[in-house]
Amino acid sequence: MIHVYTGNGKGKTTAAIGLALRSLGRGRRVALLQFLKGRETGEIKGLARFENCKIRQFGTEDLITEGAAGEIDRQLAEEGCLWAEEILRDKSADLVILDEINVALHMKLVEITRVTDLIANCPPEIEMVLTGRNCPPEIIDLADYAGEIKEIKHPYQKGTIAREGIEY
Amino acid sequence: MIHVYTGNGKGKTTAAIGLALRSLGRGRRVALLQFLKGRETGEIKGLARFENCKIRQFGTEDLITEGAAGEIDRQLAEEGCLWAEEILRDKSADLVILDEINVALHMKLVEITRVTDLIANCPPEIEMVLTGRNCPPEIIDLADYAGEIKEIKHPYQKGTIAREGIEY
Repeated sequence: MIHVYTGNGKGKTTAAIGLALRSLGRGRRVALLQFLKGRETGEIKGLARFENCKIRQFGTEDLITEGAAGEIDRQLAEEGCLWAEEILRDKSADLVILDEINVALHMKLVEITRVTDLIANCPPEIEMVLTGRNCPPEIIDLADYAGEIKEIKHPYQKGTIAREGIEY
Repeated sequence: MIHVYTGNGKGKTTAAIGLALRSLGRGRRVALLQFLKGRETGEIKGLARFENCKIRQFGTEDLITEGAAGEIDRQLAEEGCLWAEEILRDKSADLVILDEINVALHMKLVEITRVTDLIANCPPEIEMVLTGRNCPPEIIDLADYAGEIKEIKHPYQKGTIAREGIEY
């Protein structure tokens, strides 16, 4: 089945990571593909304990703001799509997380048909999770689960910066 | 800081579990207190790999529907509050998750002043996460982070029942 976590609130990637842990706890195989991210995080260090979990990042160390994505970002996103296609073809994971793919779509680093094809080619026994704000309605239409995380409040509104172990 | 995950969508407990994994990956100590829950789940099996994670459930194996909570449910919720108070007093965890506490509040198994006292007594170096739908506005007022997960779609609308490794 296809899951979408979108919205402007904190918790989209976090929920996908929680789902990964739940699946790993049940002995399933997980593949985490992180688009637009290239830094080590607490979740990567935590998931590394599980031999059934494969993780790859398809971003640079830099945070990409809208309009600032370049050729390297496009190439990395392309590599991510290729790996996702391979996993679905080989059925080498039971849960496939395309973290921030919605942002890669929004930044036009990935064509929407590429993602709708991934969804169309997702075998019924595989769960696929797509995260990131600004999920296009075409993707939500194809999803089985879709949740929008709305920010009610966040301490960055008061100037708190991202903290290790909490935001990353 | 105080975090709230509320709303009618899937992902509140899941996001809290993801935050637990992120913190554990950073070497922090986590305490997961599950109110109204008494069944083994994938996340409990997964978190059991981490020696820094303490988990206790304060519910029975039965799902409690509104109005059906009894004395045993109240007693278990009381035990949960006592453990939370102990952890905050001893500073024996860096991240304290009060899973489904909002539901325990809504069912009047826990007094709201008990929870506002927990928040007031939370040392600044401890992160406390409160999950569950129907979070009272008084709690949201006291939170630093608050997110509402809104359900856009869910396959139970088509009759799919909860699945191992996905919902639990």
